[in-house]
Amino acid sequence: MSTFVSAPALAQRTNSLAASAIGSILRLADSADMVALAAGSPAPETFCATEVAEVVAELLASGPHSLQYGDTEGLWSLREWIAAEQTALVGRQVSPDGIVMAHGSQQALDLICKALIDPGDVIVVDRPSYIGALQVFQLYQPELVSVPIASDEGLDQLQSLMDGGLRPKMLYIVPNFANPSGLTLSRGQREKLADLAARHGFAIVEDDPYGKLGFTDEVSRLPALAALSDAVIRIESFSKSLFPAARLGYMTAPQGLVDVLQKFKQAADLGNSQFVERIVHGLVTRPGLLDGLLVRSRALYSDRRDTLISSLRGHLGDRLRFATPDGGFFLWAGLPDGTDATRLLTEALTSDVSFVPGAGFFADHPDVATLRLSYSCASPERLTAAGPRLAAALDRIAP
Amino acid sequence: MSTFVSAPALAQRTNSLAASAIGSILRLADSADMVALAAGSPAPETFCATEVAEVVAELLASGPHSLQYGDTEGLWSLREWIAAEQTALVGRQVSPDGIVMAHGSQQALDLICKALIDPGDVIVVDRPSYIGALQVFQLYQPELVSVPIASDEGLDQLQSLMDGGLRPKMLYIVPNFANPSGLTLSRGQREKLADLAARHGFAIVEDDPYGKLGFTDEVSRLPALAALSDAVIRIESFSKSLFPAARLGYMTAPQGLVDVLQKFKQAADLGNSQFVERIVHGLVTRPGLLDGLLVRSRALYSDRRDTLISSLRGHLGDRLRFATPDGGFFLWAGLPDGTDATRLLTEALTSDVSFVPGAGFFADHPDVATLRLSYSCASPERLTAAGPRLAAALDRIAP
Repeated sequence: MSTFVSAPALAQRTNSLAASAIGSILRLADSADMVALAAGSPAPETFCATEVAEVVAELLASGPHSLQYGDTEGLWSLREWIAAEQTALVGRQVSPDGIVMAHGSQQALDLICKALIDPGDVIVVDRPSYIGALQVFQLYQPELVSVPIASDEGLDQLQSLMDGGLRPKMLYIVPNFANPSGLTLSRGQREKLADLAARHGFAIVEDDPYGKLGFTDEVSRLPALAALSDAVIRIESFSKSLFPAARLGYMTAPQGLVDVLQKFKQAADLGNSQFVERIVHGLVTRPGLLDGLLVRSRALYSDRRDTLISSLRGHLGDRLRFATPDGGFFLWAGLPDGTDATRLLTEALTSDVSFVPGAGFFADHPDVATLRLSYSCASPERLTAAGPRLAAALDRIAP
Repeated sequence: MSTFVSAPALAQRTNSLAASAIGSILRLADSADMVALAAGSPAPETFCATEVAEVVAELLASGPHSLQYGDTEGLWSLREWIAAEQTALVGRQVSPDGIVMAHGSQQALDLICKALIDPGDVIVVDRPSYIGALQVFQLYQPELVSVPIASDEGLDQLQSLMDGGLRPKMLYIVPNFANPSGLTLSRGQREKLADLAARHGFAIVEDDPYGKLGFTDEVSRLPALAALSDAVIRIESFSKSLFPAARLGYMTAPQGLVDVLQKFKQAADLGNSQFVERIVHGLVTRPGLLDGLLVRSRALYSDRRDTLISSLRGHLGDRLRFATPDGGFFLWAGLPDGTDATRLLTEALTSDVSFVPGAGFFADHPDVATLRLSYSCASPERLTAAGPRLAAALDRIAP
């Protein structure tokens, strides 16, 4: 066999590939007794396995055609359903032609970067921000500018930066129950952000995986950013409302960008699985199914949030500080004594409790005394055990 | 609502987005009576719909867990199966850790470019070459050098170019029953190519979607390029052996590149659908299923090839020239009088027969008097009608 004497060099963008040390730690630590607060996965109890089996049986009883290649742009009937949903949400007509399907909302982020980002372009991100977005952004070699957008003074800070000459190509935000911060933008913050985008000509990427999982009517009535501005690329997915293995995300985008995104989608993978698209279409068009799932999911996640908070408050008091999220999956906490959360994790794993240290969620200047606790996929019994186990771990390093 | 006064500029790579005029023509032309020789889709008659329904019912009877997020790297048991298959194929141990899963083999091409290609890097492609590969390559802004690799003098031409200083980063080839040329590299060509890669340090991307669909024992015994060289990134997929809606491709790569590809896979979409991976695993581990499918598929495609060739020979004689492919889906034909195949297509559509003009398959200097005819997904009755319909169309423009 020939031997590869001088291997080809890697592309320059590989320099931006982050090491995922936490990923390795957590994989090793997947013991049976673990209180697993690290993964941000939805609860399998909310998945509609029976109905998926029924829809698949119906689909395949009519022949093998759902197993063929589909259109790159996706299944038209599903895009019609999504377009009607988005029309109701943003208060103006959204056409099925304006829906771009993606292999999970993570791929939507990759396609957006392909369409918009040249090396050196400025992307404004939240502080902290979704780690998966930071990973994909970095590969396009932008200048990442990190601003605490969801905080009280965040948009004033952004305004000042722009008055000083900052010219972002786009801004990335999770407006509802953000990953990792759990924060939700107020109506006023949304209006101010839309105004800034209009005045300065940058795109807003509104990533909204948790918007249907608000725990109060008040937060569920907040307007989507896409309802306030036409500079918005809005991303949703079926991962949290149906099930993640659908790997079906979708987006709406300013006219003119849609065609470019579709072409990149074609080059990226020719299109999604039409089989999966037909399963999802079969589920969302079953009368009452999706609404019923969401009602049950909101109740389940809200209960789990309360259980975790009660356990943490009872056993850690103010040694761990956090705001109460109004929906979604995440509690974002700080260690007021400055303890490094990565050190705490090592200790916590020996107490059979896991979480994600916060440092990885910062584009720059990480706050190492932060951590993300997910209450979404641990059972109530495990969540009740979180407080004492974390307290024991903290006692050992910061008594 | 705010108005988007100055939209953000698109990234420079959008300049490379090719218009897909043929796509639009063919979509309009999808009449019920069409002899459709354009799409390169497999025959739905070869899909195992009943078995898919059975596997799904078994999977979901055991609970909802197959609907959860899976590992980014893919389902371990499926990677074990693939590793065993690749070990047998290349004659050395391939580990499940060395298998990179992708959302179709098209995504494998995108991940490879992300890992290896900087703007200006040289990629050598066949002449003609797979259009989907050309599309994704162009977005990474390389210098594409087109050489008729599979022709008798192709590797001598490549050798001369390299003696003259050409330094490719990688070379892309479909070694078996290529799309679009239908050609297969001989054993001697494979050995020479492996030797060139070793001496000059470029990677070979061996894209092999049709390798299991050879019509004679002789072609099925040809060695994989990955068996002759360790400079090979080898891509396969389940699209043609099981069904395309699986959207499951996979690759093996030189050690050191695997980890980089896995990180890009994670950034691109977090991972494939574990639900689909479990379905595919359920199918490939059913005793006899895959082998039986392949035996039937080879017979079906071989018959369709013969039917199309017989119809074309009978009605067009030497007005259309082509070599007989030894497997796969495609007949690559030339119009010896120099007729532009795009003109012929316009006329052919009014005679209810479609194909793909060859020009799009060339990285440069397109030969417009070429066309690709797919016999894979048209019924024998339709294939029999191809000859007279194409002859009538040709009569009208080149009598």
